[in-house]
Amino acid sequence: MDNRIDNVFRALFTLEDLREIHRNALPTGLDAEEEEQYRQVLARLEGIITDIEQGRAAKEITKIAGTIDVRTREENFINIQPIQAAGRLTPEARKAVIAYGDGYSTCDACRKPFRLDKISRPGISEFHADLAKFVNMDQARVVPGARRGFQAVASTLVAKGDSVIVSALAHYTEFLSVENAGGVVKEVPLDNSNIVTADATAQKIEEVIRETGRSPVLVMMDHFDYQFANEHDISGIGKVAHQYDIPLLYNGAYTVGVMPVDGKKIGADFVVGSGHKSMASVAPSGVLAMTDEWVPSALRTTGMVGDVTKRKFGIKEVEMLGCTLMGGTLLSMMASFPTVKARTLRWDDELKRSNYFVDRLLKISGSKVLSEYPRKHTLTKVDTTMSFDTVAKTHKRRGFYFSDELSSRGITGEFAGATRTWKLNTYGLNGRQIRYLADAFTEIAQKYEIPVQK
Amino acid sequence: MDNRIDNVFRALFTLEDLREIHRNALPTGLDAEEEEQYRQVLARLEGIITDIEQGRAAKEITKIAGTIDVRTREENFINIQPIQAAGRLTPEARKAVIAYGDGYSTCDACRKPFRLDKISRPGISEFHADLAKFVNMDQARVVPGARRGFQAVASTLVAKGDSVIVSALAHYTEFLSVENAGGVVKEVPLDNSNIVTADATAQKIEEVIRETGRSPVLVMMDHFDYQFANEHDISGIGKVAHQYDIPLLYNGAYTVGVMPVDGKKIGADFVVGSGHKSMASVAPSGVLAMTDEWVPSALRTTGMVGDVTKRKFGIKEVEMLGCTLMGGTLLSMMASFPTVKARTLRWDDELKRSNYFVDRLLKISGSKVLSEYPRKHTLTKVDTTMSFDTVAKTHKRRGFYFSDELSSRGITGEFAGATRTWKLNTYGLNGRQIRYLADAFTEIAQKYEIPVQK
Repeated sequence: MDNRIDNVFRALFTLEDLREIHRNALPTGLDAEEEEQYRQVLARLEGIITDIEQGRAAKEITKIAGTIDVRTREENFINIQPIQAAGRLTPEARKAVIAYGDGYSTCDACRKPFRLDKISRPGISEFHADLAKFVNMDQARVVPGARRGFQAVASTLVAKGDSVIVSALAHYTEFLSVENAGGVVKEVPLDNSNIVTADATAQKIEEVIRETGRSPVLVMMDHFDYQFANEHDISGIGKVAHQYDIPLLYNGAYTVGVMPVDGKKIGADFVVGSGHKSMASVAPSGVLAMTDEWVPSALRTTGMVGDVTKRKFGIKEVEMLGCTLMGGTLLSMMASFPTVKARTLRWDDELKRSNYFVDRLLKISGSKVLSEYPRKHTLTKVDTTMSFDTVAKTHKRRGFYFSDELSSRGITGEFAGATRTWKLNTYGLNGRQIRYLADAFTEIAQKYEIPVQK
Repeated sequence: MDNRIDNVFRALFTLEDLREIHRNALPTGLDAEEEEQYRQVLARLEGIITDIEQGRAAKEITKIAGTIDVRTREENFINIQPIQAAGRLTPEARKAVIAYGDGYSTCDACRKPFRLDKISRPGISEFHADLAKFVNMDQARVVPGARRGFQAVASTLVAKGDSVIVSALAHYTEFLSVENAGGVVKEVPLDNSNIVTADATAQKIEEVIRETGRSPVLVMMDHFDYQFANEHDISGIGKVAHQYDIPLLYNGAYTVGVMPVDGKKIGADFVVGSGHKSMASVAPSGVLAMTDEWVPSALRTTGMVGDVTKRKFGIKEVEMLGCTLMGGTLLSMMASFPTVKARTLRWDDELKRSNYFVDRLLKISGSKVLSEYPRKHTLTKVDTTMSFDTVAKTHKRRGFYFSDELSSRGITGEFAGATRTWKLNTYGLNGRQIRYLADAFTEIAQKYEIPVQK
C-alpha cells in the first residue's frame, strides 16, 4: 500500500482543523491567540505535506472523533463490492460535501414558496428539471433513496388488499413499500434464463385478476435485478402494463446513473433511481421521476387545514413530506451529475470491461457465471464452487484463504469467506485495473493449481 | 473577510484531486505518468499553502463541478439563520464525511443479519444503543430527518379518519405525516403567552372525543416549537396523554442534540430528533427512539412472502424500509455525537448568551421579543417594526438596508429584507461572537438614530 494515502487524509483533516479556526473567529479576523494556533496547524500541515513528498509513513494513525477508523478502501484497494461501485463519489461530489456538509446548507437562499426544488441558488431548481430530462420524464424529485421513491408511489396508488406485480427477483425494498401501503406483492416467475418476460407478466396479471377479481394497481419492475443483474424485458412489460391500464414503476436502481434510461420510450409512468447506488452520491439519495399524468396524485400538495389556526401549507407535497434532501446529499448528486450524465454514454466500455473480466474468470477451470452471459451489466453473480471452493474445502482458513489472497493483491469487496456463489461489480474500473483484477484471479488459481486455459 | 478562507477551500479541493489519483491507480502504486501528475498537484497545493501563509488572495474563484459556488457562509460570517445553527457540522463530522462520503460506505463489514443498525465496524450498532440512552428510551433508529420519524409513527398508529392531537404551533411536517396516514390533525390552542398547556391538551382531547366519538390515537407535541421556540408543558402533556391512554410522540427537533432530553421522565412513547437541525449532521438525518412497548408495532419486521419464490426478508423493518442512512449522513451523526452529548450539558451557557443578545436588542428603542422572555432557547422571534423597520420605510433599499448593514459587518442569516417580525438563532456562537453580534445591532441603530438605552 502507498504510504502517502494515510497522509493525504491527515492533510485533509488538518485543513478541517484550520477551517474550524475561521468558524470560531469574529468576522473582523483572527486575534493573536487564534493566529498563533493557525500558525501551529499550518506548520503541522506542512510537515504532513513534506511526509507525502518524501514518502514517509504517517506519524500517527488518525481516528475520527477518537474512535472511527478512516475509510481508505477506495484508495488502497480495487473494490469489487456489488453495491458500492457506482455510488463512489466523484471528486466534485467530495468537494461539494466539504463545502455543503452543514445540516441545512441548501437553504441559504430559500425564498417563497419555500420548497427545496424551487431553490435557484445553488441551482437546485434547474437540477430538478435536468434530472427529469435525464431519464426522459416530465417531473422529478430527489428522495432519500430509491426505496423512498417506491414508498411514495405505493402510498399513492396501493390501498389495503391491492395487488402489485413485481419480479421474482424483486428487491426487498419493493416488498416493504407494498407491505407498508397494505398491498400484496405478486411475483412474475422467471423463464429458464432467469429473465422476466412480457408474456409472463401478462399471464401473472391475468392470474391475479382471476384469483382476486381485481386488476393489480401497479407493476413495479426492475430493469436489471439485484441478484443476477440480468436485463428484463422492461419495454415489453411496459406495453403489457398499459394494455391492462396498470401504471409501470421502472426500478432503475441499477441503471439510472450508469446507462442511458429513456422513461417515456420504455412506457414508464414512474422512474426511480438511487443516488448512493448508481449516481455517485452520498446516502440516502435518489430520484423519483414521473409523467405529468401522475403529478396531481403522487405529488399532491397538502390539503390539511389546522382546525384551530386554519393554517395551510399548500405548496408542500404530502408524499415528499415537504423538502427531502436539504444538504450535502443533494449537493453531492448535483456535483456528480455532469460526470454521471457523461458516463452513461460510455456504458458500452463498462460492458466490455465487465465481459473481459468474466471471460478471464471462465478460463479458470470449473468457474461459472450465473448471470446472463455475455454480460449486459457490470454486476455479475459467479459460481466458483468447482474452482476456488475446491481449495477452501481443505484450506485451514477455509473460504477466507481466497479473501486473503485477494486482499494481499489489493483487491477487496468480495463477500469475505464466500467461495461458492457470490457477486462482484467491475463498474468504474479502468482498463489497467480490470486487467490487474483478472490477472490476480488467474494468479490465485495457478498458485493453488486450478487449471487455467490460455 | 479573511482572504485565507478561499485558499483553505482550494487546498481541500486540491487534496481531493490528489486523492483521486490514488483511486484511479493500481494497488501496486502509481505509474510514471501518475507520479508526474501527483507532483504537479502537490506543487499546486504547496503554492496555495504559501498563499495562505502570506495572506495572498486566491488566484482563482473555485466553482464545484464548474457551476456550484463554494459555500463559505460559516467561515466568513456569523450566521444567525434560524434553522441552520445547530446543524453546522463539527470538525469531526466534516472529517467523517470526507472519509465516508461514498454511497454505501457503511456496508463494508455488513454481515448477517444484514441490517444497518447491526453493523459493528464502524460502530453503528453501539451508536444506536448510545442514541437510545442519550434520550433515555429503549430503542433507537436513525431516519432521514425527523419528518421520517413522524411518518413511521403515524403510519403505524393512524388509520383513516383518526384524530391526532398536535400543537397550534405544530410544524408542517407533522401535518403532512398525519395527512399521509389518512388522519386529521386537531390543534391544541395556545394560552395568552403562546404556550401549549396540559389543561388545554386535556380539553382538546375531550373535545375530540365528544365530536368524533373516538379518542385521538396519538399526541404529537413539540417541546419547543419552530415559530417562537417557546417551551411547552411537555411533561404535563405527557401525563394527560397517558391518562387518556394515548401515546405521546415527543418532537425534539429543537431539543435533541442541544439540551438534555429524558424521554422516560417526560413520559414519551416516542422521541424524534433531527440530525441536520440539532445534531450537527448532514441532511437528511434524524433519530426515532421509543420504549420497548412500541417496538413490535413501530419497528415490526416484514411479514410479506413472495407468492412464487416464497422469499421472506424477516429482519427488515417495514416502517424503516430496511436500512436508512447507509453512508455519510450516519457517519456525520456518529462523529458529531461525542461533541453533541457534551454540548447538551452546556445548554445553560447557550441560554445566557441568547438572553444577553436579546437584552441588548431590547435596549434598542421600539424592539420587541415575540417569544417568551427570558429566553429558554437560542431561537427567538423578534419584532423590530418600531425600531429597524422605521428606517426601512424611507430607505431606498427598503428592508434590505438592514441586511446590507449586517452583511457589511460579517453577519448573515436574517431573512433578507425583513425588518418587522423575523427569527434568529444564536446557537453555537461563542462569547466574543455574541458580543460582536449585539454590538453590531447597536451600531446600526445608532447609525440610523434609533435611540439605544445605555
